[in-house]
Amino acid sequence: MQPTVAVNLPSPDPSSLHPVPGVDLAVAMAGVKKPGRKDLLVMKLASGAAVAGVFTRNRFCAAPVLLCKKSIRNEVRALIVNTGNANAGTGADGLKRAGEVCAALARQLGCRADQVLPFSTGVIMEPLPAERIVAALPALKDCDWATAAEAIMTTDTVPKAFSRSVKLAKGEARVTGIAKGAGMIRPDMATMLGFIATDAEVSRRDLTGILRRAADASFNCITVDGDTSTNDSLILVATGKGPSVTKRDLATLEGAITGVARQLAQAVVRDGEGATKFVTVQVERGSSVAECRRVAYAIAHSPLVKTAFFASDPNLGRILAAIGYSGAKVDTAKIDLYLDEVLVAQRGGRAASYREQDAIAAMTKPEFTVRAVLNAGRAQATVWTCDLSFEYVKINAEYRT
Amino acid sequence: MQPTVAVNLPSPDPSSLHPVPGVDLAVAMAGVKKPGRKDLLVMKLASGAAVAGVFTRNRFCAAPVLLCKKSIRNEVRALIVNTGNANAGTGADGLKRAGEVCAALARQLGCRADQVLPFSTGVIMEPLPAERIVAALPALKDCDWATAAEAIMTTDTVPKAFSRSVKLAKGEARVTGIAKGAGMIRPDMATMLGFIATDAEVSRRDLTGILRRAADASFNCITVDGDTSTNDSLILVATGKGPSVTKRDLATLEGAITGVARQLAQAVVRDGEGATKFVTVQVERGSSVAECRRVAYAIAHSPLVKTAFFASDPNLGRILAAIGYSGAKVDTAKIDLYLDEVLVAQRGGRAASYREQDAIAAMTKPEFTVRAVLNAGRAQATVWTCDLSFEYVKINAEYRT
Repeated sequence: MQPTVAVNLPSPDPSSLHPVPGVDLAVAMAGVKKPGRKDLLVMKLASGAAVAGVFTRNRFCAAPVLLCKKSIRNEVRALIVNTGNANAGTGADGLKRAGEVCAALARQLGCRADQVLPFSTGVIMEPLPAERIVAALPALKDCDWATAAEAIMTTDTVPKAFSRSVKLAKGEARVTGIAKGAGMIRPDMATMLGFIATDAEVSRRDLTGILRRAADASFNCITVDGDTSTNDSLILVATGKGPSVTKRDLATLEGAITGVARQLAQAVVRDGEGATKFVTVQVERGSSVAECRRVAYAIAHSPLVKTAFFASDPNLGRILAAIGYSGAKVDTAKIDLYLDEVLVAQRGGRAASYREQDAIAAMTKPEFTVRAVLNAGRAQATVWTCDLSFEYVKINAEYRT
Repeated sequence: MQPTVAVNLPSPDPSSLHPVPGVDLAVAMAGVKKPGRKDLLVMKLASGAAVAGVFTRNRFCAAPVLLCKKSIRNEVRALIVNTGNANAGTGADGLKRAGEVCAALARQLGCRADQVLPFSTGVIMEPLPAERIVAALPALKDCDWATAAEAIMTTDTVPKAFSRSVKLAKGEARVTGIAKGAGMIRPDMATMLGFIATDAEVSRRDLTGILRRAADASFNCITVDGDTSTNDSLILVATGKGPSVTKRDLATLEGAITGVARQLAQAVVRDGEGATKFVTVQVERGSSVAECRRVAYAIAHSPLVKTAFFASDPNLGRILAAIGYSGAKVDTAKIDLYLDEVLVAQRGGRAASYREQDAIAAMTKPEFTVRAVLNAGRAQATVWTCDLSFEYVKINAEYRT
């Protein structure tokens, strides 16, 4: 067994993360699950900041998600995030506890409780120790984005934070984001938790469009284990403390936001539970995007394919099998399959030129691409995933106990 | 790490397996994958035997499956099964090789090639060494059902064979069946390979109906890893050498056949790759069977739920999360969840009476039942599955290499 190390994902360099005027960060130790670690993050927003969010489609969505969905319509003044407890599967009592936390922070900040968005991540179906969180609020200490990224980690081994700045017509805008993984990852809206902020001045309407598209091109393209979480939330904040955005700027800003979202999403996979490989699954020339996504997720979710990735074993018939049972109406006799540049299968069967050692060479690398060409149309889709290792089982067999 | 042992599944006692008049069994060592093991089984059928089959819905279905689907319309005189190579993802060349094997056996038996049904199981996308199989045919040696069950094993650790006899109006009929698992198991028709034979005299039409219903109540209710194989085939033979079947007898015979099918299907799960637990997932009071099956499979496929089973860790919120993302339109506020007799969640939240040690006691047993009560209607569905252990990863990371 090799130790888990996130695949090509170094810890963020704090000096590379631009502060975002209008967002003030602070952390505390609330001892939610156990004492001695920073498990509470508060993001205070400047008055007038626009906020957009996308949330899990899991029907068992957590109490904080239910509250967020309501309160996000108001002028949001703060986000509060705890790890160690998901406050999901907790019914009416869970809503009450999440509300208590919001109310306490609102009192401290001088705003209304429904101007605070709550977020929780951790074990499901255990009561949230709201009293411990409330007690920790006076001890909140200002921090930078790198520390904020650390405070929201659960089984993550590396904090995830990315940043860039873009030149707009009226000046430079900053975009900085953080996220956490690392299991129960098959976002159907967003990952477990992701927060991206810019100081640009953007309307809530524009922000919502940007966030939807950015989520579809990032967090909605990743999977670790196929388990869509109860708490997935991705939030985009525009504080308006930086340059106002012209119509022309919108695409530039969206590009930067999508770029940060994609880096964060890929970082979640690179640090997926037990991951030793980062695999891009690209499905091309399908008859529709939905069909391509179906095929890509079948490959990315197959435990047999994922264990073959782990072993660098070119048992690539397993990929054909997954395509075959994906539910997509593919013509198997037309399908070509590549591993990086190696043509593995041609027209549904083993390619004449295929040599196993070429596939092994590709799979032994920590990053490679599986490319399935359906030869049926012009649609395509990409999914990022990781392998299934001993460590995955170990982490999840021991997570709670 | 504990060694893999099939869950409560002893090796079959050969004396408990009724021979079926009209079915002659023989095995040989063809060295398909490696020399020195019985990897070839031939089942010769008496003239006039009725044969019904259900096959995988994987679109990459194997060459032998394609041939079977055609030839099963003829009067079938023999089945030939090889392990070590699935002859799937092999295109036109695979069909040719499967045809060569059928032709050679037909010459030896004095029948037509399209009266022989071929079956293959093993690695996908490698050329079938037809010449080695053909060369082994003269060395076939008569055997009993227990030996036949052994000859079709791949990663199975225990041969699977069950038998019963039933009293019909005109005499005693025998039903004996064999099957093999143990990975790529999420049948969408039948498991990898299953063969059931009776000496009763039944029309092909009646036999087909019995097989469809028996498959739906057995092999179509199991999952090991969610991977629907390219080679799934379940065959039911009625040789007509025993008693003819009256209208009244049909239900009795169907009961016996379904019973054997269910024992075989459960045996495949008990011997699932790396399985240490046998888990019955029962979904009750849903609004439709399809909805209940959707929920049951979401639970049975979740790697997080399966690793919790492995660890006997009552991290049961993971089950709620799986129900939530299953795609079924459940009302989460109505759902009750039981582990054996322990009420875990009530109306979507942790039950007041729930004590963790009760759940641990249930999960520590090698067999237990997860029961989700949706309180939405009168439909129900059951799925049998196993846990996800270190051994699963080990077996599949090392299967081919």
